[in-house]
Amino acid sequence: MSRFISSRYRDLEPYVPGEQPSGQTYIKLNTNESPFSVSADVIEKANRRARPYRLYSDTQCVELRNTLSEVYGVLAGQIMVTGGSDEALNLSFMAFCSDDAPALFPDITYGFYKVYANVNRLPYEEIPLRDDFSLALEDYRGKRGTVFLANPNAPTGIALKRDEIEALALSRPDDVLIVDEAYVDFGAESCVPLVKKCPNLAVVQTFSKSRSLAGARLGFVIAGKDLIQDLNTLRFSTNPYDVSSFTQALGVAVLEDEAATRQNCLTIQRNRAWTTDMLEKLGFTVLPSLSNFVFARTDKMDGEKLYLALKEKGILVRHFNSPRIRDYNRITIGAIEDMQALKTALETILA
Amino acid sequence: MSRFISSRYRDLEPYVPGEQPSGQTYIKLNTNESPFSVSADVIEKANRRARPYRLYSDTQCVELRNTLSEVYGVLAGQIMVTGGSDEALNLSFMAFCSDDAPALFPDITYGFYKVYANVNRLPYEEIPLRDDFSLALEDYRGKRGTVFLANPNAPTGIALKRDEIEALALSRPDDVLIVDEAYVDFGAESCVPLVKKCPNLAVVQTFSKSRSLAGARLGFVIAGKDLIQDLNTLRFSTNPYDVSSFTQALGVAVLEDEAATRQNCLTIQRNRAWTTDMLEKLGFTVLPSLSNFVFARTDKMDGEKLYLALKEKGILVRHFNSPRIRDYNRITIGAIEDMQALKTALETILA
Repeated sequence: MSRFISSRYRDLEPYVPGEQPSGQTYIKLNTNESPFSVSADVIEKANRRARPYRLYSDTQCVELRNTLSEVYGVLAGQIMVTGGSDEALNLSFMAFCSDDAPALFPDITYGFYKVYANVNRLPYEEIPLRDDFSLALEDYRGKRGTVFLANPNAPTGIALKRDEIEALALSRPDDVLIVDEAYVDFGAESCVPLVKKCPNLAVVQTFSKSRSLAGARLGFVIAGKDLIQDLNTLRFSTNPYDVSSFTQALGVAVLEDEAATRQNCLTIQRNRAWTTDMLEKLGFTVLPSLSNFVFARTDKMDGEKLYLALKEKGILVRHFNSPRIRDYNRITIGAIEDMQALKTALETILA
Repeated sequence: MSRFISSRYRDLEPYVPGEQPSGQTYIKLNTNESPFSVSADVIEKANRRARPYRLYSDTQCVELRNTLSEVYGVLAGQIMVTGGSDEALNLSFMAFCSDDAPALFPDITYGFYKVYANVNRLPYEEIPLRDDFSLALEDYRGKRGTVFLANPNAPTGIALKRDEIEALALSRPDDVLIVDEAYVDFGAESCVPLVKKCPNLAVVQTFSKSRSLAGARLGFVIAGKDLIQDLNTLRFSTNPYDVSSFTQALGVAVLEDEAATRQNCLTIQRNRAWTTDMLEKLGFTVLPSLSNFVFARTDKMDGEKLYLALKEKGILVRHFNSPRIRDYNRITIGAIEDMQALKTALETILA
């Protein structure tokens, strides 16, 4: 840190992304990426259709929003596209939190929420999950502020039902509720159908997980037109050209092959069941996940030690050195061969 | 605006990007894009080398920073890459301005500076340019705050010399000076060589203009390691995965063909001389530009009327309805055929 940095940010602790090793080849089960690539056909289409790069990208992302509109059954005006869902989340903190509307989120959730609150100098409250890491919706009732719920939650994988979120949204009509559905396509219930009746609800999604485009940086928000307009006010005040022309074209192309996305999600769910079963047979406690990862612990080995032992065997998982969860590791569900390799490694390590 | 928007932003006025018409084909001389496309070879290389899209992009942009390091003769640790230079500028406002360090910039300059100050709720002062739109450096001496200078300036095209900026930086060692060099490759002097001796100076550049990649969204900052670290603290607290894998690969590929970039810049300078001459012969006053646009006015027609008349003839230029400059239009320097079409249109309009 230099002596020039703003006094506002002297104590700011940035987000720490999961390791992205270069060189040595790991089986990467640490950042919840998809094991499946988009087809060569999708990439060829994107190359063919992208606006020439010498021209600025479309700040309105018209074609992509129109395609999302068809896939999700909402109006294009109910959609905002961003450079990854991280940007959408940051804009949501900016637009809908303030000194009068603190951010409310679980004590165990996506680690970036706390950073967004801090970088925007917003008050926030971390509301503890129950001992079993399930979320007690009653803890949010009557508490003023803007709620951020990852559903399914990360790193636990546990999901709320749509009905529960609807009841929460309806019970606090004067406060915004952001549902971060990064992992929703792997078996949980999306809240997109609630947007029509809940003007205080915004759903954030990403192309990084189920649509295999983590490296393309593409996210979106679905909400009532008024909330979308608010978010765009902030987007056009920070980085309106946030989504490159190639990424917009990739997004459209991958949405034209929803069958492939659905197939990949089903495979992940099958591999998740296999992995959960495998881990339980090895003596692990595995939280009930509806995402493309599982959160697991074993009495036989400390969480960090297991993470390091797996790394030594060429398998990267994610360990969080945080209260309540440092016994656990978050394991991305990859291709079945990856999970079989994990099984072999664990059998050796725990033997 | 919804009733939910943060009280902080009720009065926020977003940036208004230049028109990007779809459908009807205009000669686009309104957003300072390049008339030249990167070669098919550059695009093919980017496709071949980009990290697979299912994986997250490299938050450190290692390969791209290494390539920039070679081209610019600075260390990779003196470079930060961003999703367009707009993001770099916003992060600079965040990192280096505060209640104690207001932002200082000319009254006539890139319109986004004021928006960045407002969205970050930072004090700022607009310091009037002289009547001839040249910048009086003495107006900044002794004034505490973080200075933002577009050099060449937009929309005037007028540039300061490197020596002048060096003197300013050395005269205010306790304040940061950001030099926005979006247009520097068209004939002005870059301040990159000053970074070694001026620890308070940061240079922001973009791939959007001279490198023909406006749609790829790629910018970068060159500064001392300490300032770069500060900027990364903010970048990793907002959107660390800001640059897509394809864009990183495109950046590397286009840097491997610097001869093409230099050739394009020379062509623009030649076309700028031609256009300036043509406009002056038609009775225009043209400010002395070192950028890829000219700022021009004529006594024969109101600025906005001329803008509309050109639009009707299929030529888009940029008119700013702002004090002091509403008589002017900013005209991007395109291919020579574009400028010849402009000449024909103007001759008809002014006849």
